[in-house]
This record gives sequence, structure tokens and C-alpha cells, in this order.
Amino acid sequence: MKAEIIAVGTELLLGQIVNTNAQFLSRACADLGVSVYFQTVVGDNESRLTEAIRIASSRADLVICTGGLGPTQDDLTKDVLAAYTGQKLHIHQPSMDKIEAFFRNRGAHMVESNRRQALMLEGSDPLPNDTGMAVGVALTHEQTHFILLPGPPKEMKPMFERYASVWISAKMGEVRPLYSRMLKFAGIGESLLEHELIDLIQDQTDPTIATYAKEGEVAVRLTTRASSEAEAEKALAPVESEIRSRLGQYIYSNEDIPLEEEIIRLMQNKQLKLAVAESCTGGLVSDLLTAVPGSSAVFQGGIVVYTNEWKNRLLSVPLDVLEGTGAPGAISDVTARLLAENLLKQSDTDYAIAITGVAGPGESEGKPVGLVYIGVAQKRGETVIKQLQLAGNRELIKLRAAKSALYQLWKLL
Amino acid sequence: MKAEIIAVGTELLLGQIVNTNAQFLSRACADLGVSVYFQTVVGDNESRLTEAIRIASSRADLVICTGGLGPTQDDLTKDVLAAYTGQKLHIHQPSMDKIEAFFRNRGAHMVESNRRQALMLEGSDPLPNDTGMAVGVALTHEQTHFILLPGPPKEMKPMFERYASVWISAKMGEVRPLYSRMLKFAGIGESLLEHELIDLIQDQTDPTIATYAKEGEVAVRLTTRASSEAEAEKALAPVESEIRSRLGQYIYSNEDIPLEEEIIRLMQNKQLKLAVAESCTGGLVSDLLTAVPGSSAVFQGGIVVYTNEWKNRLLSVPLDVLEGTGAPGAISDVTARLLAENLLKQSDTDYAIAITGVAGPGESEGKPVGLVYIGVAQKRGETVIKQLQLAGNRELIKLRAAKSALYQLWKLL
Repeated sequence: MKAEIIAVGTELLLGQIVNTNAQFLSRACADLGVSVYFQTVVGDNESRLTEAIRIASSRADLVICTGGLGPTQDDLTKDVLAAYTGQKLHIHQPSMDKIEAFFRNRGAHMVESNRRQALMLEGSDPLPNDTGMAVGVALTHEQTHFILLPGPPKEMKPMFERYASVWISAKMGEVRPLYSRMLKFAGIGESLLEHELIDLIQDQTDPTIATYAKEGEVAVRLTTRASSEAEAEKALAPVESEIRSRLGQYIYSNEDIPLEEEIIRLMQNKQLKLAVAESCTGGLVSDLLTAVPGSSAVFQGGIVVYTNEWKNRLLSVPLDVLEGTGAPGAISDVTARLLAENLLKQSDTDYAIAITGVAGPGESEGKPVGLVYIGVAQKRGETVIKQLQLAGNRELIKLRAAKSALYQLWKLL
Repeated sequence: MKAEIIAVGTELLLGQIVNTNAQFLSRACADLGVSVYFQTVVGDNESRLTEAIRIASSRADLVICTGGLGPTQDDLTKDVLAAYTGQKLHIHQPSMDKIEAFFRNRGAHMVESNRRQALMLEGSDPLPNDTGMAVGVALTHEQTHFILLPGPPKEMKPMFERYASVWISAKMGEVRPLYSRMLKFAGIGESLLEHELIDLIQDQTDPTIATYAKEGEVAVRLTTRASSEAEAEKALAPVESEIRSRLGQYIYSNEDIPLEEEIIRLMQNKQLKLAVAESCTGGLVSDLLTAVPGSSAVFQGGIVVYTNEWKNRLLSVPLDVLEGTGAPGAISDVTARLLAENLLKQSDTDYAIAITGVAGPGESEGKPVGLVYIGVAQKRGETVIKQLQLAGNRELIKLRAAKSALYQLWKLL
């Protein structure tokens, strides 16, 4: 099946927002086995939207529109498709009831234009909106399938995942839903990961295997179609265990969560406490950990020892380690160890992480940009010290150093 | 002038990357006074790219393509436009010299396919690539103007800003370049800012006025055409001073830099030192400050006092302030003041910031999500305490609290 995605909205043509909907839908179509050949963006304009729909239906079997389902006069997508296909518009009563209830419950007056959000085309199937008011539309007209989705991602995504994808699969003669599994990796880069799995990736048919990289983490996603959870398991399990046998030491979760969330979860379950001392990462590790709701049960606190004076005064690293000819310096395994071990003692936690290094742009202590030392001290066990040479700009080195430190901690848990 | 933007690349249709180029170019066209009516994305496929170019040139005066100028067999954009317009391809010698020099300087062997990056269409103007190798193309064919730009944003943006925009302006009979000025605001939300400037925004003709909001900051951009810097100044200055007379207290820069960068710059010039104590922001303020290169001259360190024990042990907030019936609690003006003042004394800096509040998702100490207290202690002056009620999820509240704290500091500098 060939698809085209049309995003409707003048704010896209003015460059006020980025078209992330097109990315989401393209990826979702790939999962369904649908090939996207074109993406189009058009403004809130009747004649140009009509033209976009005409061109799309001449070259695609499936046309997915996002945007223009709201209550205002600018929201034209349903009207345009109705005129284009010759199908009349009518009110979808369950959606209308929901909209009225929404206003009633808030004791607010419902402006008449809100009724527009309950409009449906004759002969179409409704796509429920679980996170908003405008009902979606699925319609087949002269061999072309049309899907109309709302523009806001928080309404569009669940509507696609829960309803539109099922409708499209059925039109493809495919009633088995998609099952997918995410394996999250830390401590390994995307290129090495791909290298280790290249034979699996190249030979993939079912399940499909895709790698993703963002913000210092890498993920592998396995996707298959199956009639039941058990059947999906049968297809996914052998591939997952082959991947685990090669790279299991780097897999921290089979859910799509960041490493810091998994660490907080593990430590909370074991009732373990953590403290952090940061130099080159400048507070980023603490920021990542405290982004996880409930982290206060685990994370006690952090110290950003940015200067040598702070390293000395707050965490008792001797000045003759930090400075002077022949001294190891602030960026050294000795300092990483002292920061971690002194913080552990002082804070009486189960683990303490320390990071010191050169984030750039210039070198420091004559040491190169990207050189980073990580120390993890533990109440019951030896301190682990790791030396890394990271690539990237200041921002990326901070992020990679932070994720690497979290990875060293995770390995010990 | 009506424009269409065509982004070429199968990775866009697979959803592997977001089409940020379309956003950049749409905004840049708006600045030039060019109206973008359509954006199209098409894969690395000869016949579909030809079709996209055919449709675009039937409905636009200006067709801007990005992507497909590289050395590989997938990079087809120049070949397709050559075939479509009937113009022959030839090597652009200055670009070829540059490519050969690049390989020679690295002592690397130049693969023959790299020559493709120096190709130009007969009758076209070259658009120099200051940050990469593939030369861009500007061509007028049967009343339609075509611009071919590379796909990587770091090559595409400078090529557009330095060369393509000038070429387009000339085609519009406009030889005056654009001048713009960015006013960066802190401590004010986008809707209040728009409300205060609504008459200026609505009546705008020259200069144009646009507001932007992202990551806890708001900006206003003024743009005009002028034959000289002095003429631009004449158009921009009265509007800027009108905006400053209304909202000057919130404007921290007329360059596009984040608030933390301006703070580091100001404090570095005055040789002032800073320390930070964070509770609900969890290290984010320190992370923002240390993202600025050279911040170590100003930022001494930070303490993330996430638990009451740390607030007490590291910054001497009495336990009977933090806990117990009738106590102010950790989330209070009293605690914000003590954290800031004790940190100032202890670290011997010129300023110390403290932030304590409820980032959510649940309430804390019976206090609502979004309640935040900020304290800024100063060596020469009274401590400033600010109470805020912020909206958003955990991530947004952390960010808004961090930026608000930086704003309170900036006001004192």
C-alpha cells in the first residue's frame, strides 16, 4: 500500500512549528508495512487543500491528513474532503454528547462552533478521540482510503495508534495487530551496535529490526504481526535472545525508558540511596535523575564541584592532588576516586558517582577535550574507576559523560 | 512571490529524521516577503522527484529544494533538474578545486564520485558552500526560479542566508538586504508579551515584528529591508525603543543568546562569582550555567539539596524550620532565604541563588504542584525572595523555575 501524508496548517508554512506529525506517521506507516512516497504541507486554504487532496489521491492508495479538525472557521479539512468526495456532513451523536458533557461538567457555555468537532462524512467510520474533542474520520472513496486526524500530537498519536492503524490494517486484509518490543542499550554506540547485529538487521523479514539513537542512548525495536500475544512472543523471543546473547551486558530495559529511570526503579526496589559529585557534567547527572518522578526516595543530593576550591572544601580532595607540578590534577583517576569515596562517606549513601573531565571547547590542565574519568564508590564493594575519551561538542560531551556515569552505576546494581 | 519547498530524502519518508529544513526555510522566506504555499517531501527517486518538481513549478514562482547534492548515486537532485529543464551539467571549477584541495590536505584518496558535488547546470549561478563541499545552484527557467541547497542544516543554512536569499531578493527586484534584531525577554510569558505589544504587532508593516517562545524564554524579532546599516537602524530604532519603553525591564539582550549566557558574560566582566543551591530544579540551574563555555570563571559550584537532611547538613537549615507541625517547611520563603544566605557565606561568592518548590507530579508538604520559592543572596545588598506559582508538567516546572531564578539574579546585576 502506498501512502501520502498531508499536514494542514498555515503555522507550518510560516515556520512557526516543525512538522513532527509527519515523522510520527511516517514511522508508524513503516511499521504497518505501508510505504510513504510523499509528505505534503498545505495551509488552511480551501482551494489549495482541495488541490493537495486531489494530487495525493491520484498517486496514493492511502491519504492521511492531520490538522484542521478544530472548531474554528480555519478548520476546513472535513468540509474540503466532503466537497471533494461528494459525501454529506452530519453530526456524530456520541462525539456531540461528549463535547456537550465536557462543557456541562465545567459549567461553561458551549460556543456553537464546537459542534463542528463532531462532524462526520456520510459513509465514513468514526475514529474516537480519547484525548480531545474532534472526532477523526476514516473513509474509502473510489479505491482511495482517507484518514483525517487532529493536528495536536497528543490527540493525533493515540487516535492513530488505537484506531486508525487497526482500520488501515483491515483495509490491507490484515487483521493481526502489530506487537513491538523495545530493547534499550547503554554503554554502546549506535555504529558498534549496528556492526554487531548487521547480519540480523540485513536478513530481517519478521520480526523487523530497527535501531534508534538519541540523547546518548541507543534502542533496538523488534516488530511483528500476530494474532495473539503468545504468537507474537514466539516470533520476538528468539530474536531477542539472539541479541541478548551477543550484547546482553548493554541492555538495561525492554521498555522505552531512559537509563536514569531504570536506575531509580532498581534502587527504589532495593531501598538503596545515591549521591552524585559532578565537575565537567555541571549538574546534568543530578538533573537527569531528578527528572524521574519519585527520585527523591533514592537520590539524596548532588554537589557540583566546579572549581578546585570546591573539590577541596566540600569533598576533601587534597590541594596537592589537584594542583602543582607532577600532581595528578583535577582531571584524573585519583581525583575521580577521592570525589566518589569521600562523597560516599560524607553522605552515608549506598553508592556515590563522581565525574571529572574536559567538556571543552578548550583543553584543560593540558588534557584533551573529551577526556573523562568516572568513579563509582559503593558501601559494599570496591570503587570502580573508568577512563573515557568522548567525542562531540561541549553539550554532547556533557551528555555522553553523564550517561556513561549512569551506565557504570547500573552495571553494579 | 509564491514559493514551494521540496525536501528530498528517503530518511524523511521513513520518519528517521524530522524536516527541520522546511521550518527554517519557511521562516526565512517569510522574512524575505516570499509566501510559502506548499512544502513537499519526496524520496531519493528519480521519477517521483521529477513529478514533485513538475507540480511545484506549475504552482510556484520559486522552488527551493534541499538534499540530494552529495556524492552518492542516491543524490539525484541536480540530475533531475537538469533533465527537467534541459540544461546540461558541467563541473564548476572553483568548487572542484576546493574539493580536490580538501582531499589533498588530508592526504586522502578522492573517490571519483566526489566530483559530482561540483556539478552545476548550464546557465545557473553557483551558491558557494562555506561549510561543506557540494555547491548549490540558482537557476531561472521559463519564469520559475529554482534553488538547490544541500540537506545537512549546517551547510544549508549558511548557503541560504549568505547567498540564496540575496539571489532571491534580486529576482524580486529587491536589492536591499534584510536586517533583523532579536530582543530576548525573561520573566514574562509569551501571551502577556503579545498582549502588551498587540497594537504594534497588528499594525506592523515595516519593520515586521514576530514573537517566538521556546524553552522558558521569549523573543521578539524585528526585521526590515534597508540599503545600509544606518538606514536599517533608522527603521528599527523607534520600534525597539517603543518596545523598551513598555517592557524594557524584561529585555536582557539584543542578541539571540540564552539568559544564562548573558549572566555569565555580565558577571565575568564585573569579576563576580556565583554559587547555586537547588532543591526542586535538581541541578538544572547548574547544568544551564555550565553549558556556557567559560562559565568556570564565574560559577564556583552548586549543591543539589534534594532531601531535608542535605538541606540541614550541607547548608545548615535548622531541622525545626524544615519539619514538624507549624514549621515553615522545606518549601517556604524561610528555607529559600536560609539556603541562599548560608550558601553565600559558606562559598564566599558575590551572589548565591536558592530554589525550593514542588515540581510534581504530586503535591509536597500539602503544598500545590508549581509552588516555587526563589532566594537570591548578595554580598552587597539585601536578599531577594520571590514566590511563584508555575504551570506545566514536572519537566516544564523545573525549567520555568530555573529560568525564573536566573531572571531574579539578572535583575540584580
